[in-house]
Amino acid sequence: MSAEAGQWWSTDLTRIVPGEIDLGGYPVEQLIEHASFVDAVWLLLRGDLPDRRRSKLLEAALTASVDHGPQAPSIAAARMAATCGVGLNSAVATGTNLLGDVHGGAGQQCMQLLDELVQRVRDGAGVQDAAADAVSRHRYVPGFGHRFHPRDPRRDPLLGLVEDAVAEGVVDGEHLRAALAVEAALADGRTRPVPMNIDGATAVVYAELGFAPELGRGLFVLARSVGILAHAWEERGSGTRIKGPIPRTLLAGYTGPATREVPRGR
Amino acid sequence: MSAEAGQWWSTDLTRIVPGEIDLGGYPVEQLIEHASFVDAVWLLLRGDLPDRRRSKLLEAALTASVDHGPQAPSIAAARMAATCGVGLNSAVATGTNLLGDVHGGAGQQCMQLLDELVQRVRDGAGVQDAAADAVSRHRYVPGFGHRFHPRDPRRDPLLGLVEDAVAEGVVDGEHLRAALAVEAALADGRTRPVPMNIDGATAVVYAELGFAPELGRGLFVLARSVGILAHAWEERGSGTRIKGPIPRTLLAGYTGPATREVPRGR
Amino acid sequence: MSAEAGQWWSTDLTRIVPGEIDLGGYPVEQLIEHASFVDAVWLLLRGDLPDRRRSKLLEAALTASVDHGPQAPSIAAARMAATCGVGLNSAVATGTNLLGDVHGGAGQQCMQLLDELVQRVRDGAGVQDAAADAVSRHRYVPGFGHRFHPRDPRRDPLLGLVEDAVAEGVVDGEHLRAALAVEAALADGRTRPVPMNIDGATAVVYAELGFAPELGRGLFVLARSVGILAHAWEERGSGTRIKGPIPRTLLAGYTGPATREVPRGR
Amino acid sequence: MSAEAGQWWSTDLTRIVPGEIDLGGYPVEQLIEHASFVDAVWLLLRGDLPDRRRSKLLEAALTASVDHGPQAPSIAAARMAATCGVGLNSAVATGTNLLGDVHGGAGQQCMQLLDELVQRVRDGAGVQDAAADAVSRHRYVPGFGHRFHPRDPRRDPLLGLVEDAVAEGVVDGEHLRAALAVEAALADGRTRPVPMNIDGATAVVYAELGFAPELGRGLFVLARSVGILAHAWEERGSGTRIKGPIPRTLLAGYTGPATREVPRGR
Repeated sequence: MSAEAGQWWSTDLTRIVPGEIDLGGYPVEQLIEHASFVDAVWLLLRGDLPDRRRSKLLEAALTASVDHGPQAPSIAAARMAATCGVGLNSAVATGTNLLGDVHGGAGQQCMQLLDELVQRVRDGAGVQDAAADAVSRHRYVPGFGHRFHPRDPRRDPLLGLVEDAVAEGVVDGEHLRAALAVEAALADGRTRPVPMNIDGATAVVYAELGFAPELGRGLFVLARSVGILAHAWEERGSGTRIKGPIPRTLLAGYTGPATREVPRGR
Repeated sequence: MSAEAGQWWSTDLTRIVPGEIDLGGYPVEQLIEHASFVDAVWLLLRGDLPDRRRSKLLEAALTASVDHGPQAPSIAAARMAATCGVGLNSAVATGTNLLGDVHGGAGQQCMQLLDELVQRVRDGAGVQDAAADAVSRHRYVPGFGHRFHPRDPRRDPLLGLVEDAVAEGVVDGEHLRAALAVEAALADGRTRPVPMNIDGATAVVYAELGFAPELGRGLFVLARSVGILAHAWEERGSGTRIKGPIPRTLLAGYTGPATREVPRGR
Repeated sequence: MSAEAGQWWSTDLTRIVPGEIDLGGYPVEQLIEHASFVDAVWLLLRGDLPDRRRSKLLEAALTASVDHGPQAPSIAAARMAATCGVGLNSAVATGTNLLGDVHGGAGQQCMQLLDELVQRVRDGAGVQDAAADAVSRHRYVPGFGHRFHPRDPRRDPLLGLVEDAVAEGVVDGEHLRAALAVEAALADGRTRPVPMNIDGATAVVYAELGFAPELGRGLFVLARSVGILAHAWEERGSGTRIKGPIPRTLLAGYTGPATREVPRGR
Repeated sequence: MSAEAGQWWSTDLTRIVPGEIDLGGYPVEQLIEHASFVDAVWLLLRGDLPDRRRSKLLEAALTASVDHGPQAPSIAAARMAATCGVGLNSAVATGTNLLGDVHGGAGQQCMQLLDELVQRVRDGAGVQDAAADAVSRHRYVPGFGHRFHPRDPRRDPLLGLVEDAVAEGVVDGEHLRAALAVEAALADGRTRPVPMNIDGATAVVYAELGFAPELGRGLFVLARSVGILAHAWEERGSGTRIKGPIPRTLLAGYTGPATREVPRGR
């Protein structure tokens, strides 16, 4: 019966016995000496260590994603949390909790789209036709276009690294080609292009590296946790207590009913 | 420009000026004297106060939903949180955060189904045909059947109150009839019935009272927050520190790779 | 051994067997018919049902606390969450998670102070001396004064209800007298008074009703969850996606270092 | 006035203008090419890039902290969350939210203790006297001893790296010496030693690198987020829905009052 409860919590990830900790089978003391932090991310998510080239590619995508300023609700909420008397852990949780389908899900959605396109190409479709078809079916294609940047400055360096990795045979380039075909289809006939954004460029990296789409979200959460923590910490340093979204001198507007009496004897 | 930021945070719900607070237009001091807590729930969600009969019906559904024991992950997670050195607010947040589509969404999904059926009946379909059709399309009908209770003890008293309200003309009974037709269709030809559970019975109440399906989830969150808080508080009283899911003597099983060397020079 | 894991999750609150649910020993179907929602709150937190007078007093304090507008970070964060593609449950969790020691803890801290004063009075001190001493030791006395309201409109009706309850012998008034003595001590020699705010007035109610200070926070979390839910729902209705703290047209300022080159070969 | 709201959200961390993103003043495209992920963590938390030796030391501490198995409540809660129909971001938030003062705060507390000892040594005290005095004042010294490991396998490799860094003049070793003195004081006169655990060893690393104690918690949150994500993902792969803390066959025990009638006419 003890087995039943123990089995209910069994895991492939980590083995713990008194004095020993293995992650994915590797003794933790060897990992401390010979693995990078990004290697450890890969190990726990994929079950084994990556080679150096794949690890560096993952690292570039994570580094690219750490922050995009306090205007993002995930960051703003974490900064507000930091002023409310909760631990930094709760401030970080507040931020990551907001990285849902709309605010943090575009990368995952882009990976799903790229997977579909790659499958269609493997089934014999031309990549340009498949991309044009996909574009025609979406009003908004996740991973492309940015409400603020005409061209996201993180696109080119990330795609450049993927192109290098394809040239060296590290990854096969199927998802990169699908993404570029979508970008071309989106530019076709428009006055201004809709280039890949950070969600699209990291989706290409993660998909080329074989991560499942849902882990695209997971990896973004890990990366953006860095910015969330840093902003929470910066706000802590400000000494503000109970920070609202706008300064107290700018009162929130009221648009509801005028003052009225509570009816008695309802 | 000040207006721009103030407008960004405008609301219909609450008016605050120095010395005055109105909720939905009613002075808070009048609400304190003449409104119940459930009235205040209705007021903020619907924009005006309910009559006494509707308020009591809502109250019964909320009361029915406060707890279902520590086996629920929302409750267990809150109890664990309470032992980790976070405030009760964070323990409660931990629990409510788990009331997602799978653990807390059946009521909302049932309300959506009932809305569809009611619409089909309004469009001329027979309620039994519409229900039989819906049942045939779902392997699992949200709001019906319980993995633990052969007949959920909360079903009968809640539906009894709805039937009374229909008899008195307080609500019109369309959603109740749709739900009963689904229950009948689910029983048809089966050796054992699949009666409405708490999610189904509260869905009938909330839908009859005119709440949107998504608020079905919201109301469940409010009600279950009571049990989450109470369990967190009970755990706090135990003095346990860092409560794991099973006692330390029942070690979680390890099912991953055997111990191996970290390859060097990757 | 099965007993070990079952016992690890044992509880006094709720008994579940197939077809039966008891809360605090009371069958849930009887509670649905004969108990209010506030009764159920009391039952789960205290182990038995309250009498009608105590239930009404608790209800008034909860009703008074449901909302104070979108300027509060707990509310603003929940509204932002609602625009990020997470469920209403996660939006509510986001808000309650911010009700920490600073933003949501004043009631608990006030209850602790009142408990100390009541103890000193029971030990023979005069209530005015004890209060004056407490005031002289705190720069900021939790539960007194409001950054926005010169006099919090929720103070008078709540204290009025407590006074009635004292007159009727429902509660003994020790904590009320201590709080009034603090208020008098704070007014002494100042040009403007520092009257009890919502945290202080509800602290008096909860303390008179015998709740532990930490549950003062818990009850505030339950009550404010109503406002958090209502604001999240109002924001959902707005259709805004990824709501930042200020409109996009008002860019957050940057105060860091000027653009510089990443040093190579570090 | 626009300035007022923009200033309210100003930051030193990230500069965003259309087409440009700088982190700490460095163009993001240069960071993608020339900085590691750990460099980016340092940059956002400290305001500038670290040298390679310091970056590697931080990396080792982060790598050492990624996971300690599903018995930890932070991990168990995240695994349960993953079965409840919430996004991976919310599952991760659930886990990090539990890393409070008790479950995740020992490193921060250890850093505070080490800072005190270092200050006393700088003020002229002998490190052994200061350590013995600190040990005598604490029943439980944060960062020392482990309820499961007689000797934490992460201690030696981490302290070895710090010793190397001291030998090379990368860090000054004050906090290392203080921690070793505490360890010696704890061993003094006991039948079994109480060696540094992961919290203590990483506290030494972070303190030697100049991080504030509260960021010790922050860095632990970042590192452990990797394990939290990986466990949530593993659980997702299991297909379990609504995972409770123990299998359904092991019912939680009930220890409350026997079934009783709700009194009427209260």
